[in-house]
Amino acid sequence: MSRVYNFSAGPAVLPLSVLEQAQAEMLDYQGTGMSVMEMSHRSAAYMAIIAEAEALVRELMGVPTNYKVLFQQGGATGQFTMVPMNLLTDRSQKAAYVHTGSWSKKAMSEAKKQCDNVVMVASSEASNFNYIPDQGDWQPFADAAYLHVTNNNTIFGTEYHWTPESGDVPLVGDMSSNILSRPVDVSKYGIIYAGAQKNLGPSGVTLVIVREDLLGRRSNLPVMLDYKVQAESESMHNTPPTYAIYILGLVLKWVKAQGGVAGMEAQNIAKAALLYKAIDEMAFYSCPTQVESRSRMNVPFILSDDRLNESFLSEAKKADLVTLKGHRSVGGMRASLYNAMPLAGVEALVAFMGDFAKRHG
Amino acid sequence: MSRVYNFSAGPAVLPLSVLEQAQAEMLDYQGTGMSVMEMSHRSAAYMAIIAEAEALVRELMGVPTNYKVLFQQGGATGQFTMVPMNLLTDRSQKAAYVHTGSWSKKAMSEAKKQCDNVVMVASSEASNFNYIPDQGDWQPFADAAYLHVTNNNTIFGTEYHWTPESGDVPLVGDMSSNILSRPVDVSKYGIIYAGAQKNLGPSGVTLVIVREDLLGRRSNLPVMLDYKVQAESESMHNTPPTYAIYILGLVLKWVKAQGGVAGMEAQNIAKAALLYKAIDEMAFYSCPTQVESRSRMNVPFILSDDRLNESFLSEAKKADLVTLKGHRSVGGMRASLYNAMPLAGVEALVAFMGDFAKRHG
Repeated sequence: MSRVYNFSAGPAVLPLSVLEQAQAEMLDYQGTGMSVMEMSHRSAAYMAIIAEAEALVRELMGVPTNYKVLFQQGGATGQFTMVPMNLLTDRSQKAAYVHTGSWSKKAMSEAKKQCDNVVMVASSEASNFNYIPDQGDWQPFADAAYLHVTNNNTIFGTEYHWTPESGDVPLVGDMSSNILSRPVDVSKYGIIYAGAQKNLGPSGVTLVIVREDLLGRRSNLPVMLDYKVQAESESMHNTPPTYAIYILGLVLKWVKAQGGVAGMEAQNIAKAALLYKAIDEMAFYSCPTQVESRSRMNVPFILSDDRLNESFLSEAKKADLVTLKGHRSVGGMRASLYNAMPLAGVEALVAFMGDFAKRHG
Repeated sequence: MSRVYNFSAGPAVLPLSVLEQAQAEMLDYQGTGMSVMEMSHRSAAYMAIIAEAEALVRELMGVPTNYKVLFQQGGATGQFTMVPMNLLTDRSQKAAYVHTGSWSKKAMSEAKKQCDNVVMVASSEASNFNYIPDQGDWQPFADAAYLHVTNNNTIFGTEYHWTPESGDVPLVGDMSSNILSRPVDVSKYGIIYAGAQKNLGPSGVTLVIVREDLLGRRSNLPVMLDYKVQAESESMHNTPPTYAIYILGLVLKWVKAQGGVAGMEAQNIAKAALLYKAIDEMAFYSCPTQVESRSRMNVPFILSDDRLNESFLSEAKKADLVTLKGHRSVGGMRASLYNAMPLAGVEALVAFMGDFAKRHG
């Protein structure tokens, strides 16, 4: 067994201790004589697992009591539909979006199927999404049913390092790629959602945190798409993705042991600083994102000569540094530094980058 | 480590060899240096996993080439919505359902949100769903957009041992609880769907087999709910539930090693016959379902004295026979005998039942 440093943007690296525990419990979860995968979701053993996962989300994120915590299926893409479907009572109501890349584009595209009045209040498209637009430059949105932001942009490597002020308009945050990586004031949001496969666990489960007064605006929705039904059944209207939630719970325990989100943030600041410093100091590499918008989670970087990309990737792989290829929208490389990526992995990457630049620069 | 015989209706027992392989590969899948959970769904290693799973579904079920095989999220409940949403071009079109229990009731309830003309062509509700209505007694449905049946009823323990004749009307089969347990002529169906958590793998992934001419009847659907989008992207429009699909693939390989669906059917006939024979021969137990409709997968049985239910369950548990409590709609006990339940488990249950009846009868 030889583990690599996996810089995948998602599904992504998980804490080794989480995988080891899952491995140890695979055939017999805590004396039940069965795998978590084999358990009825209504069994006492499983009900304890999902209850603990919810309690840990509440504790780690400081979720106020007037918010529901849901474990949904369908990923962020499912939420692109559920948000407008649940929050708009009428197709003519305004839905406001800040456009910061591929994910907000998809979110708007799905919203347009539910809404005739999707409004882009700001966009960084003109500069290939290399920054988060300042709120001072946004169009007004006080008459919108909600305001949607993408808190971290995996592809373009940008991140909100601040919380938008939305007044009485419910703020909806897609935190798929930076949840639990830093403290968040949940009370500033109406809805927070996050596909699990970056900072929370395996793909197939989506965390949704929704303020209670936003439930039930619409009736007669499909049960799988109705926050109210899902909240009233505590994510158990039908069989939830039980094993994915179990792994998510193990990840939450690991985050707690790391000092919670404050502890994670300190590690994430150190990891990102190390990599950005290396990129900025070596003329061989460059980073396309504006400094104040740089993501701590996803770091795109460009080699001075595109023809070296394949060599970089193949040599990196030989050094057990994998999944570094950049997204085609940006090119070059991308290193994702989610919670579970240890500092040692970033140190190894930076050392390799220095060596590669020396040999090819 | 001590394994039990787990008669859960779902999530349910998995083959021990599947769990052992998953355990062995947890930290390092075939030399990749990472868990399947940590892999990009676009990586070569993962693309091979999902492609093999699809190929095995096609091989084991004999899926004709004009059908797409999809891996979806949301369970059968999600399909209750997707079927009418995708197949009806107009709310006034007729959607025909055969009502054989809780699942068909839920399917109709979700269909009514998409359709003003949901028609029940037959129902066994008057006798608490203890049989499958003969097709000769059904109302006509030739003008329907589709006909929906629930091929196996987990709660009431009934199963179609025949394929409905639907003529030119697309037949939709919810095979969540008996897929891969017996040969099926896929060409008789327009759509087959099955939540994985009974015969296929863990919860969180749903197998959908859909005839190509049924794709694209509707446009502008939410991408997560659009069979056409899902088919064109080969279930990769967004991140699929990667680990659940991996386990499903291991289960498929195990089914193939058991002699495919024909081999599974032989085992399932033997297991079910053993248990029904025991129930029928001992006056202490009775089975509420009509003989010709009895499910091979889910066997409800009633004790002669309801006051002994708790003793039965607690003594069974001491004998490592667990999750036998019947659904409240039927009462008594229920033993689910899915593919992965070995004959030895049924033998142990029957021996325990005989012993219990002697001591308490």
